[in-house]
Amino acid sequence: MTQELFTINNVWMMVATILVFIMHLGFASLEAGLTRAKNTINILFKNTIIPAMGILTYAFVGFDLMYPGEAFAGGFFGLSGLGLSLPEGWDTSNYNEGYTFFTDFIFQAMFAATAATIVSGAVAERIKLGPFIIFSTLYVAICYPIVGMWKWGGGFLDTLDTPFYDFAGSTIVHSVGGWGALIGAYLLGPRIGKYTEKGMKAIPGHNIPMAVIGVFLLWFGWFGFNGGSVLSADPGTVSKVFVTTSIAGAAGAFGALLFSYIKFKSYDITMVLNGILAGLVGITAGADMMGVGESAIIGFVGGGLVVFGVIFFDKIKVDDPVGAISVHLVGGIWGTLAVGIFGELAGFSQLMSQLIGVGAVGTFCIAFSFIVFYSMKKTVGIRVPEAEEVEGLDINEHSMRAYPDFATKD
Amino acid sequence: MTQELFTINNVWMMVATILVFIMHLGFASLEAGLTRAKNTINILFKNTIIPAMGILTYAFVGFDLMYPGEAFAGGFFGLSGLGLSLPEGWDTSNYNEGYTFFTDFIFQAMFAATAATIVSGAVAERIKLGPFIIFSTLYVAICYPIVGMWKWGGGFLDTLDTPFYDFAGSTIVHSVGGWGALIGAYLLGPRIGKYTEKGMKAIPGHNIPMAVIGVFLLWFGWFGFNGGSVLSADPGTVSKVFVTTSIAGAAGAFGALLFSYIKFKSYDITMVLNGILAGLVGITAGADMMGVGESAIIGFVGGGLVVFGVIFFDKIKVDDPVGAISVHLVGGIWGTLAVGIFGELAGFSQLMSQLIGVGAVGTFCIAFSFIVFYSMKKTVGIRVPEAEEVEGLDINEHSMRAYPDFATKD
Amino acid sequence: MTQELFTINNVWMMVATILVFIMHLGFASLEAGLTRAKNTINILFKNTIIPAMGILTYAFVGFDLMYPGEAFAGGFFGLSGLGLSLPEGWDTSNYNEGYTFFTDFIFQAMFAATAATIVSGAVAERIKLGPFIIFSTLYVAICYPIVGMWKWGGGFLDTLDTPFYDFAGSTIVHSVGGWGALIGAYLLGPRIGKYTEKGMKAIPGHNIPMAVIGVFLLWFGWFGFNGGSVLSADPGTVSKVFVTTSIAGAAGAFGALLFSYIKFKSYDITMVLNGILAGLVGITAGADMMGVGESAIIGFVGGGLVVFGVIFFDKIKVDDPVGAISVHLVGGIWGTLAVGIFGELAGFSQLMSQLIGVGAVGTFCIAFSFIVFYSMKKTVGIRVPEAEEVEGLDINEHSMRAYPDFATKD
Repeated sequence: MTQELFTINNVWMMVATILVFIMHLGFASLEAGLTRAKNTINILFKNTIIPAMGILTYAFVGFDLMYPGEAFAGGFFGLSGLGLSLPEGWDTSNYNEGYTFFTDFIFQAMFAATAATIVSGAVAERIKLGPFIIFSTLYVAICYPIVGMWKWGGGFLDTLDTPFYDFAGSTIVHSVGGWGALIGAYLLGPRIGKYTEKGMKAIPGHNIPMAVIGVFLLWFGWFGFNGGSVLSADPGTVSKVFVTTSIAGAAGAFGALLFSYIKFKSYDITMVLNGILAGLVGITAGADMMGVGESAIIGFVGGGLVVFGVIFFDKIKVDDPVGAISVHLVGGIWGTLAVGIFGELAGFSQLMSQLIGVGAVGTFCIAFSFIVFYSMKKTVGIRVPEAEEVEGLDINEHSMRAYPDFATKD
Repeated sequence: MTQELFTINNVWMMVATILVFIMHLGFASLEAGLTRAKNTINILFKNTIIPAMGILTYAFVGFDLMYPGEAFAGGFFGLSGLGLSLPEGWDTSNYNEGYTFFTDFIFQAMFAATAATIVSGAVAERIKLGPFIIFSTLYVAICYPIVGMWKWGGGFLDTLDTPFYDFAGSTIVHSVGGWGALIGAYLLGPRIGKYTEKGMKAIPGHNIPMAVIGVFLLWFGWFGFNGGSVLSADPGTVSKVFVTTSIAGAAGAFGALLFSYIKFKSYDITMVLNGILAGLVGITAGADMMGVGESAIIGFVGGGLVVFGVIFFDKIKVDDPVGAISVHLVGGIWGTLAVGIFGELAGFSQLMSQLIGVGAVGTFCIAFSFIVFYSMKKTVGIRVPEAEEVEGLDINEHSMRAYPDFATKD
Repeated sequence: MTQELFTINNVWMMVATILVFIMHLGFASLEAGLTRAKNTINILFKNTIIPAMGILTYAFVGFDLMYPGEAFAGGFFGLSGLGLSLPEGWDTSNYNEGYTFFTDFIFQAMFAATAATIVSGAVAERIKLGPFIIFSTLYVAICYPIVGMWKWGGGFLDTLDTPFYDFAGSTIVHSVGGWGALIGAYLLGPRIGKYTEKGMKAIPGHNIPMAVIGVFLLWFGWFGFNGGSVLSADPGTVSKVFVTTSIAGAAGAFGALLFSYIKFKSYDITMVLNGILAGLVGITAGADMMGVGESAIIGFVGGGLVVFGVIFFDKIKVDDPVGAISVHLVGGIWGTLAVGIFGELAGFSQLMSQLIGVGAVGTFCIAFSFIVFYSMKKTVGIRVPEAEEVEGLDINEHSMRAYPDFATKD
């Protein structure tokens, strides 16, 4: 490996890092846009604190949990110390041909907070700030890196006879967030007024332009999320991943458009936006393994599943204000299974491995989320008082309003 | 060519791709910001669907039309099949020294949708959604790649004795969009209340911060649009293009500021914003051929032309809510001609070739746009009913409002 | 030096340039978000014109002042002509191993306007447009490059026995802006209604989502601001800078959160946002010299200092609507001194050199700002009339409103 190639690889990985970073603004914008004006500060506060917390905890413990090296305990758990200790040759291709130690850390750190950010949307508009921060910290610092190690740190999912495959994290990142979102939304219960005797009431987002900004920034960042997961600047693989990712996102828009039009007879922009995201989540597990047509199918189905996911979760009265569960959990499972159905790895034993991965990760995340949320629910409480929810979390938890100069309707 | 240089080139082209992608958010923000709150969802919907559609159709047919290779028919039309078929050595410098096949495709695909996005702004606030989507799809999938082939695919404009020159698309991209915008706005007629017996009434944009976000994102993306059009990471040429592009954009701001202050005696931010864009459009045809001073002149004149363009189109009652025709058509023609007047290629025969290019592209785009828009106008209709226009397209076409929590004045 | 390595270095520096460019949108969004709706156009106008002006003046005179080469006069002042003249070998590694002449210029040009943009926030909501533009132009074209030359152009701060150290500009950029902000805000006086007999009245920002967008974009751009200041793509140094920068920004959020909670008993998002920025400003002087733990301390303290800075400047009735003085001046001084306290350069003589740098730059900027602002104050006036301030600058200076479709409270 020449110094030149090492330097190029590292430049690309740093660019990818920056792109994943800005996804946190994408999530913040999307979630704020799709909820009500009275809870905007609260959502933005959470989505600002989470990446900051994620970077710090990942430096302190997450990175050591996720890449424990020799420090294994049977492929399920490992820890290589606390804090970041520079290995010899950390800034050369002896560490890795694609990046330095610091690039490795910071690229992975940007991923880490994503899991909690996904949860944030689903529990929005009624969760207490303190318990949410506690859950997020534990989820990002402990749950996510342990699960991540199972595959990316060389753990048991990576050493199956037919190894579980998850290129950039349909399961390892997105469904981890999705499971936390599901458990959180379930234990919190729906927002006041969402499900009444007269049926389900739509609670529209207060700022659709922000939601659009959010989705475009997420797509923008996804070039780094998936493109960086090549772990080098290899021209063929990265450029292929760009194409499969873009095709799937685009097809997701049309999948959601078609099925939402059939179901609701209107051109619903929030469905299209979530359809794009579901297409992106769907391709993430196999972005390097799919052809162009396969990517279009995966994205289109992912977009369609969002529509049915939203309808389904409303039917069982799990109130997810932004559709995060449908996008990241349903889309993540779909994308993970798709690796066994389409593309270069397709086959029965691969599909079984994918199911094992989905199941193992799901079991762990459900248990972890349930224990943390439920124990807080039974002690400090996780839901704001009714009056506070009606008046809005901004004024009650933050003594501020997001738009104090404007006349609002609520 | 070393593998290292090929890899660097390809990394830069991928970064440029990402930058051009985010221009679609720039267009969405700008157009939404400069129109009324009641039509915001509609504009955002179009600007979200168009890039998704553009990527898919470009994969299916556009790329094959634009770069037909041997499959020519006299330099005016060619088609090399349907869909993306990987040539041998697609991921090596044998395909191209600057990029892989997939990078080539996805970079070009990001450009493709731009043409329709430009139209979107000019026809805003009164066009029916369905006909607009049909027009956009045909324009992006067929009209744009055919015209693009004339120059970039080696067609007849590229084989003139003095070849037509259009570095990154003042004509091939921006004026293509501009001609469609002109025909669309003309056939639709002005918005209700725009031109009355008492004269022209300004209809201000509802969210100027969004317009500012849009313009900055467009400038940001232009580093990829122009910088990527070098088609390699060549240090001298790309960095020169960065400088000429930035100087022209900056000078465009002052051109528009000066003339709008003279004309209207106020510091009009929308003119300054459009002036920046016109400066950027203007330099696009010759960004690699101009010196610093020439770039300043081209940008400054481009910015000034926007002011006169806006006044002119209002005088002839072509209602362009966001100034897209002045920016992209007037600015695009100016920039294309400027290649014959300033810089390394300046000269009479070059100027003639530039005129031929402007004329040929204009003729084709006018004809194409007119046929598509006019045939829909005479059948399904292209304009929403008067009541729907007055109430807003959001509630009528999308059953949603962009800002449901806020009290609006209309 | 191989052509490959030169090309990689240059690609990274161009990417860094683009990232610093988008910081101007970050500043625009942050400042507009943290002020009132009635002054939004005015702020956006300034923040759009300033980078345009900065690029043009930097091409005309700033770059020649900042990097005068041989054309010195005792290390305090130098000028190598006017305009950009291409040196021989400008596009090869003979010019510089990290970048071409044009990359050098445009990267530095993007930095230049930052100083004035920082001032913009502190003087917002009451300064006359014309005088502000005059001040900004002089500050960017003359004051900033002279001060910058003292260190980065090889001037007297760079030739001290123990050279002053300022990696990416805690002093050279941020405190330069901060001093101008302090003098401007002081000479203008506070906004009407800010400090009354009954005490200080908080004037909340009108659009917190925009402020969040601004801070994330600034952090995003800081990867280029600090990462590009390595002046090459050196894998070890750039990736280290990414980590120290991110850790400091994240720790700044928590520093501000802790102390603002202690002081105000609420979760104040604007403090957290400014805390992130102060952490970023703080690490900027020594981003390549600090370990992970040291970066966390520097950021945390920086974040805390913002809270006390805001309280302090309110106590002495210097009205800074966005907290720019606390972030950029206090944070900048702290970061500069921190280089003498922490990291690879720590030591008494370094700390003394850092103090000399802070003092010299402060003295010059205070004098420059005072002379310019004061002479305008005594002639044309720098503050808008009272009625105009109450009604808002948008309608009076720009004949426009930022959100004409919405009902506002003031």
